[in-house]
This record gives sequence, structure tokens and C-alpha cells, in this order.
Amino acid sequence: MLVSDAEILQTALDWHTRGSKVAIATVIETWGSAPRPVGSQLVIDADGRFVGSVSGGCVEADVIADALDVLADGRPCMREFGVSDETAWRAGLSCGGRIKIFVERVDLMQARALSELSALERARHASVLVIDIATGALRIVSDGELEQDPLGIQLRAHLGLGKSGLIEATGRSLFLRVNVPRLRMIVLGAVHIAQALAPIAKLAGYDVTVIDPRSAFATQERFAGVNVIAEWPERVFIDQGLDHYTAMVVLSHVPAIDDPGITAALAADCFYIGALGSRKTNAARLDRLRGQNIPEAALARIHAPIGLDIGAASAGEIAIAIIAEVIASKRQKPLRFEEAA
Amino acid sequence: MLVSDAEILQTALDWHTRGSKVAIATVIETWGSAPRPVGSQLVIDADGRFVGSVSGGCVEADVIADALDVLADGRPCMREFGVSDETAWRAGLSCGGRIKIFVERVDLMQARALSELSALERARHASVLVIDIATGALRIVSDGELEQDPLGIQLRAHLGLGKSGLIEATGRSLFLRVNVPRLRMIVLGAVHIAQALAPIAKLAGYDVTVIDPRSAFATQERFAGVNVIAEWPERVFIDQGLDHYTAMVVLSHVPAIDDPGITAALAADCFYIGALGSRKTNAARLDRLRGQNIPEAALARIHAPIGLDIGAASAGEIAIAIIAEVIASKRQKPLRFEEAA
Repeated sequence: MLVSDAEILQTALDWHTRGSKVAIATVIETWGSAPRPVGSQLVIDADGRFVGSVSGGCVEADVIADALDVLADGRPCMREFGVSDETAWRAGLSCGGRIKIFVERVDLMQARALSELSALERARHASVLVIDIATGALRIVSDGELEQDPLGIQLRAHLGLGKSGLIEATGRSLFLRVNVPRLRMIVLGAVHIAQALAPIAKLAGYDVTVIDPRSAFATQERFAGVNVIAEWPERVFIDQGLDHYTAMVVLSHVPAIDDPGITAALAADCFYIGALGSRKTNAARLDRLRGQNIPEAALARIHAPIGLDIGAASAGEIAIAIIAEVIASKRQKPLRFEEAA
Repeated sequence: MLVSDAEILQTALDWHTRGSKVAIATVIETWGSAPRPVGSQLVIDADGRFVGSVSGGCVEADVIADALDVLADGRPCMREFGVSDETAWRAGLSCGGRIKIFVERVDLMQARALSELSALERARHASVLVIDIATGALRIVSDGELEQDPLGIQLRAHLGLGKSGLIEATGRSLFLRVNVPRLRMIVLGAVHIAQALAPIAKLAGYDVTVIDPRSAFATQERFAGVNVIAEWPERVFIDQGLDHYTAMVVLSHVPAIDDPGITAALAADCFYIGALGSRKTNAARLDRLRGQNIPEAALARIHAPIGLDIGAASAGEIAIAIIAEVIASKRQKPLRFEEAA
């Protein structure tokens, strides 16, 4: 099982809180084909226990040895690993890949930062952890603090694309570790396509909730391992806490189910809103929403007909077309944050 | 569990062979949003047992009653179902959807046809079952017989897109039921992305085989429920029988694994060939393949960098980008069949 970023940092915090010495290793840069993206982390304690991953396994033994040194003397260290062809072969890596890894000890200041990160995560706020590579000094900027921050523009760019990375600013090397709340997908309508969509979206990394008031359709048997709620959407959205990190996928074809989903998603600024239906069905839907005085600019945010145009025909294919469009929405356009007033 | 088309027809044949009276109901046309696509089938015996599905459940009781009539008098029947709002709600259908269903009895001639279809299916040949709607008379045209057939152009068009449908020809209404072998995906390289790709491709309807000679990576633990082969690709391709209904996805970054996969896929006319790698990696790959005298027209068939450009970053997202491209290859361009000499 892969462990999520939040779980890795929580482990670091838990171990530290219990009195263990803890180091964190972070992938800072990669060249060629690296097994783990920039920002990936490994947490190590003084007994050599570890959680997470910074490579396909080939360099982790070395990183753990470095971590033990860092725990001993407290100074952060930066290591670059060029993966030899022979090692790469055994580790299933590309030939000649290289990764740069930063290893630091969790001290009191960092523990506070991790604790703050954890709180932001629970409140579903995005944030950037800014690490000064030379000193290991760090600070956290939450999404609400971007405007006032001297690095606001650069932080906003990284946060918007959800990508961690190194920057140079005011003569210093800074690593920006982007923390974005786990993405959610709300699927309205426990229909045939939803049965294909829910497990695929889960595998693609989304927290999926299926909502349909028709209790014959919204059953756990039809949606194994997925959060299923047999209720009217309006009653559940309050608990679900729709937000900017939620994709709303509307499939029921029943206006009394679909329309409240769309209006709630627009109000919550969901990063993706898509609705199943022919052009005719969608035109009728837009007319209904105009009748509720929803402005054209908001209506233009609805992806309908839903999904990338890949000629999808079966339920499984339509599910792929939908998730591909959700990903494109997230990655190709930076996520929008509220502009300064 | 959804049952495949081939399994439904095999059930009809089995029941008939054991002496049961058997009827087949087929979705011939749909308007609005129908729960099952054209070509979907339900097989019913005289005791009212049934396998398959032609709707979300709302009209199946009526179809089964029709089937019992058809079994009694032997004449095929055509029924159209307009789904009322009330029924649609209970059945989870769109309001006002309509479907046309053709119900016929399996007689000796049809049993022979089903048996022939079953043999073509096992040999991985595509075919079209042509049903005369007025009389129920039927015949089968396999992919090898398209050239000689008077309806060759129309059959080729339907077969190429993998879509069943009604046509009018020589003054008759004919239903073309397209039978395409189950699509396969060969994934070369049991890497991180393959771990996301294999289960998602399975859910999207593909038979997936993962091949990697590095036995530490090609393990059943890493690929639960997927066919995994820890062998050099050349040794396995003979058994795997690459064909026109196979997608070849090359992920290992190791030329000795990837290149033989690509050349074998080109030789077998796989409908999709895609290779992971940066533009630079792919340019080096093309140079190696040119060194093997592979013509430029063949090289142009390789999708590289692999996957639709949706800004995919995580392994799950890259998997979605790859499968979306495979689907687009299958659906947007008609599958090519060998041209007449």
C-alpha cells in the first residue's frame, strides 16, 4: 500500500511527540526518469524504522544511513544520487536517473510546523511549507496568507499547479513543499456509469462519495468500498463540506437530484463540475439554472456534455473520459484562489 | 457482476443444447438516455430464467413476458418501450427514454450461428451477425469475409467502430450486431505506473497482462488479480498471440524490454502502441528502431510520449491519460482491416 503525504508527516509528528528522534528525507529535484516525484518523503527514526518512499528502493538504504548521521549531529544534509545502470536495472529504474534528496532532523520548530500543517490539512486548507535549504529553517504559508506574503506570486503558482519544487529568491535556495487537501469526488446518481467511475476514481487518488436518494440504487452492494449515501443531495452537502478541492460529477438525469448538486458546487467553487447528458438535455438544464438567476459566467464553468471527447461508448470508457477531464481541469489550469479585494 | 456479451450468447447456446426453449432479446435502437447500449442482450428460457440485461430493470419483466409468447409461437417480435417518468424514477432511468427491443426464438439455424460466433470469438476474429428484422433470418460475416460481401462497406464501417445498429439495405431492415474480440492490454514493465494502470484498465474492460523479466517487480503481490509474467517479452509474445485487438503499453525504460515489445506490436498490427519516456528518450528509441529497418510509417504509429496531454503528474493520473488515449485510438478512428489485395 502506498501511504499518503499527510500520513507520512503525521507519522513524523507522532514519533517525535513520543520522544523519538526523527528525520525527514525529501526529494528536492529529479533528472531523467525518477521513481518518485519531487516532494516525496521518507520519515526515519533513530532505530532505522521508516515510512514513505523517496525512490524505487535503490537508494533508500543510503538515505537511511544519512538520516542516522543527521539525527546524531542535527545538521541538515543534501545528497545527490546518480543511479548506475546496474543498480537501476535491479531497482526497476531508468538508466541514468538522478535525484537530489534533502535530509533534516525534526526539532521543536519543525514539530510545531508539522502540527500546524496537520491542522490545516484537517481543515482542508492548502499550504506551502517553505524550507531554506542552507539552514533548514522553515515556515508555513496557508492559502489565506498568500496575498500578504513577499513570495506570494511564486507560492501561488506552485500551489495552483499542486507542484513542489526549488526556487531561488533573495539569494537563497528555497524548497516549496506544496500541501493540497486530498481531492474529493462527489458522484450524484448511483447509476451504471457511477459503478465504473467510483472504483476508477478511487484508484486515481480521489476520495469518492456517491449520493442518490433512490435507495434501490445507492446500495453498498453496487458500490463496494465506496462511501454511498442514499439521501437527497441538499441534505448531505452540509456534512460533505464541498470546497475548492472537490470535483462534482452529476449523472442522475433527474433535475431534482442534479440541479441542487450543480448550484451547490458553483457556490462552493468546486474545481470541476461536469454533467452527463446530450446537448439537448444540457440546454434544458442551463435554462432551468438561468431561471434561478445563476449568471452566465458561472454556467460556463459546467463541463457538459461531460468528459473528454475520446469517443467513449461503454460505462468504463465514459468513466475514463470523465476522470481524464477532471485531471485536465486540475492540472492544466492553475487552481484559482480568491483574488485580493 | 456484469456478464460479457460472449457469455450471454454462450448461455443461450448451452440452454438450447440441453433441450430448453430459449429466446434472445436485443436492444435494436435507443432514443434519449438508455440504460443499455444498442446490441445489449437478454437470454430467457421457458421457465423464465434469464441472463444479461436490456434495461435498468424497468422493462425487463415485460420483455420476459414477450419472450414467453415468442417461445410459444416461434415468431419474432419487436417492442418499443417508452419509459414513463414514474417508472423511470424507480428504475433510475432518465425521464422519457425510449428503447426498441427485438425478441426472437433460438431455433436450429440460430443455434448453428451462435456456435459459429462462439468459434470466431475463441479464435479472436471479429464478425457481424446480420439479422433480418422482418423474418428473423440471420447470417454471420467474419472479418475475413468482408471483401466479398455485398454489404461489405456498411459492415466494415460498423465493425471498425465496434458499434451495433440498424441499417436499411435492399429494401430490408437489418440489424448488425457487431462482435469484437475482448480487448487486451499488454503492459511491459512492472513499474509504479503499471501498478495504477493494470487495475484501472481492468475496470475499463481490458484483459491485462503485465510482463517484466525483473522478477522482483513482476510479482503477484504488486499486481493483485492481474496476469503477471516474469519473463523476457520475446519469450511470451508467442503464447500471448498479439493481434489487432491488443493494446501494447511500454513502460520499462529498458531498451532490451521495451524495443522487442514495440517491434512485435507493429508486426501484429496492435490497434494501439504507446511508449513512456521524454521526447529525448523517445527520439533515441526511434533511432534504435530505424537501425532495425523499421519504416517511418510504422514508427509514426507509436504514441510517444504516451497518453493524452491532460497534465497528468501522479501514477494514477498517468494511467488515466494512457487509457484515455487507448480508448480514443479504438473509438475515434475506425479499426483498420487488411485491404483487398
